[in-house]
Amino acid sequence: MTMLEILEKKKLGKPLSRAEIRFFAQAAAEHTVPDYQLAAMLMAIRLLGMTDEETVELTLAMRDSGDVADLSSIPGVKVDKHSTGGVGDTTTLVLAPLVAACGVPVAKMSGRGLGHTGGTLDKMESIPGMRVALTEEEFLRQVREIGVAVVGQTGRLAPADKVLYALRDVTSTVDSIPLIVSSILSKKLAAGSDAIVLDVKAGSGAIMRDLDSSLLLAENLVRVATLAGKPTIALISGMDQPLGTHVGNALEVREAIDILSGRAGGDLKEVSLTLGGYMLVLAGKVETHEEAVAMLERALGSGAGLKKLAQMIAAQGGDPRVCEDVSLLPQAPVQKQITCGQSGYVSRMDTAALGMAAQGMGAGRLRAEDGIDYSVGFVLQVRIGDRVEPDTPLCVLHARTEADADRAEAAIRRAITVGGEPCGRAKNFLGLVTKDMAVRL
Amino acid sequence: MTMLEILEKKKLGKPLSRAEIRFFAQAAAEHTVPDYQLAAMLMAIRLLGMTDEETVELTLAMRDSGDVADLSSIPGVKVDKHSTGGVGDTTTLVLAPLVAACGVPVAKMSGRGLGHTGGTLDKMESIPGMRVALTEEEFLRQVREIGVAVVGQTGRLAPADKVLYALRDVTSTVDSIPLIVSSILSKKLAAGSDAIVLDVKAGSGAIMRDLDSSLLLAENLVRVATLAGKPTIALISGMDQPLGTHVGNALEVREAIDILSGRAGGDLKEVSLTLGGYMLVLAGKVETHEEAVAMLERALGSGAGLKKLAQMIAAQGGDPRVCEDVSLLPQAPVQKQITCGQSGYVSRMDTAALGMAAQGMGAGRLRAEDGIDYSVGFVLQVRIGDRVEPDTPLCVLHARTEADADRAEAAIRRAITVGGEPCGRAKNFLGLVTKDMAVRL
Repeated sequence: MTMLEILEKKKLGKPLSRAEIRFFAQAAAEHTVPDYQLAAMLMAIRLLGMTDEETVELTLAMRDSGDVADLSSIPGVKVDKHSTGGVGDTTTLVLAPLVAACGVPVAKMSGRGLGHTGGTLDKMESIPGMRVALTEEEFLRQVREIGVAVVGQTGRLAPADKVLYALRDVTSTVDSIPLIVSSILSKKLAAGSDAIVLDVKAGSGAIMRDLDSSLLLAENLVRVATLAGKPTIALISGMDQPLGTHVGNALEVREAIDILSGRAGGDLKEVSLTLGGYMLVLAGKVETHEEAVAMLERALGSGAGLKKLAQMIAAQGGDPRVCEDVSLLPQAPVQKQITCGQSGYVSRMDTAALGMAAQGMGAGRLRAEDGIDYSVGFVLQVRIGDRVEPDTPLCVLHARTEADADRAEAAIRRAITVGGEPCGRAKNFLGLVTKDMAVRL
Repeated sequence: MTMLEILEKKKLGKPLSRAEIRFFAQAAAEHTVPDYQLAAMLMAIRLLGMTDEETVELTLAMRDSGDVADLSSIPGVKVDKHSTGGVGDTTTLVLAPLVAACGVPVAKMSGRGLGHTGGTLDKMESIPGMRVALTEEEFLRQVREIGVAVVGQTGRLAPADKVLYALRDVTSTVDSIPLIVSSILSKKLAAGSDAIVLDVKAGSGAIMRDLDSSLLLAENLVRVATLAGKPTIALISGMDQPLGTHVGNALEVREAIDILSGRAGGDLKEVSLTLGGYMLVLAGKVETHEEAVAMLERALGSGAGLKKLAQMIAAQGGDPRVCEDVSLLPQAPVQKQITCGQSGYVSRMDTAALGMAAQGMGAGRLRAEDGIDYSVGFVLQVRIGDRVEPDTPLCVLHARTEADADRAEAAIRRAITVGGEPCGRAKNFLGLVTKDMAVRL
């Protein structure tokens, strides 16, 4: 078997066999065929698609291209959560401690960010002293002892995905359903959980901007994950504005702590509890999603969630006092309140542009080797649908310099549209997909 | 403009602009973008096609990626000829001297072969002393003085094609009409002629095996060449058996000399005169193709064609006595007559397999750096439709060793099917395409 023969077959629209797909994934992981052949295959997949069977085989082959975590030493059903990514999207830091506080183990491997702000690992590292690079043994022991750990990959997970993902980025083949599905699921399967809750974003700050595409992606993710033997539920949630009010690494940790302390509510809380609820359901902790959310609410109200977060921070070398005193988190030297400057209704946010504004301040990476400034970002004080006046607070900027703040202010003003007509609020929940059904909400 | 933006546009099925196509061709020629991006673009073109306008722009951009020959110092209309390639296909060595003998200048740049046997340059180099690497000045002077020269490229012609051709070969994107058309025509346009006669092969020894595909390719070639400003005619000729009876480099030169001497006839002669006839028509030498062929017949009958070949050989440093004594060409040490061994009718030849048999004897290259044995090959003594008996001569092998001869014999026997039922002869002419019409013959 050669890569050229496999390309020949794919190009003619014939479905590839398991052996052919394994050859491709292995070749990517081990760099045994030239990048130009991988690139030609990625474009053929982008343009011709893949059958479900092919996508399952590619997912499994990519999973098997590296280590597969063994979580069997942790008692109970381990449920993973994955978000396709958005701005101000800190659900992991809210739901992981709450789910753990309800007695369901959370053994979660997260990623770093490339884009508007950091990933969950970057956000966690904004907590003084926090370690995210645990050995597999430390990771498993921590989950057994306190029920929760959020860490970087403990092994070499899905190296084929790493190679193909980098190549997709430079060959305009990112927007391929089978390639997105196999990329996401190969890593989730390699992370060793028993079931998966997916948060597929739709809107101006998401990979998939419209609901139809998001729904299609969610259906494919659930179908392929189910075929691969993992019970999976996907929620489609809105990304027409940043999910939380806080955008930036330490700022997002602060919002998570504010929510777990009961000081803050809003969309981030609502989406976190909904996703966490599905985790409890898949773990078999409760029968219905309503019961699950009520259980999470109790863990929040009692302070058990915040206590669990403090335990996790302490276990990973961080300073748990941040949970009581958020001023211990990194603070930006320049803080500047800006107001709306006009009357009307907040009708639209270009969420991707807001993310880029945060990146421009230093909150996110342009390249993998770039550093991140944990302290910078902004706190939005308006939501879509709000009636505003010229002196209504718009946001507080947290910047390194006055010049950075001015640039960010201009970018944020460009990204937020205030119109003359009243408009409705943005929806948090747009769809739900299980193995048996797909509904728009 | 970046290659990634161009890929993004192509992938979405949008036609590319002249500037974008020039960027792509220039990037290929100058290696300024990575191969994986070129490969992804080639696969996108293979799967999505190109409009005629895009193909014209790609052709012109590839032409302009290198030198363009200036034939203006040669008086008259210069007509080039190109064949898509087949086995025993030596038309250039027959028609170039005949056309020149009729007073139409032939300034032809040919290629080397990669495949079953050598290209025209390799065949010419089997003549003792023959030089094919002339400077542009030598090349032009020779055509002005004796009316004909067949040489290697005098400059760096269409370097973008060289890069893309090599990449197509390893990414399964050879079989793309716009890529084939732009590859062929960019080199022909860079070679500087005023008009072009194309010989598009169809059959078991051709790139395009069936008539429909060959016709489609011919129509695209003629349409794009016409849009690029070059009057062009395409003949579709049969390749269901080797065109000439001789397969191998020196053997094919021998057949060309035999034809020009009046000692041999057959399909190679017929196709050469037909193609040469269209060259005379496009050059404006005569009105009709019938007159043109009659004029070529006269040049052949008078010995003027053979004399012109001898002049060309002498001008390029070769030994012109080969035209009178073909035994001066390289001779293989082993010559072996084989017979049919069965009764029936020759019903089918796997022409590509016959080509591979010649290659296996040493007549063709597997890789560009391989050497060629000019002397080896075989002379077929049957044609499709022939009634044969066990002792009917099948072919004469010209081999380096007895073992080589035995291997070739087995391969040739496998490639030729003798059936019980009478069957018709293979057609030489299957179609004709001009800018105004496309007909099946």
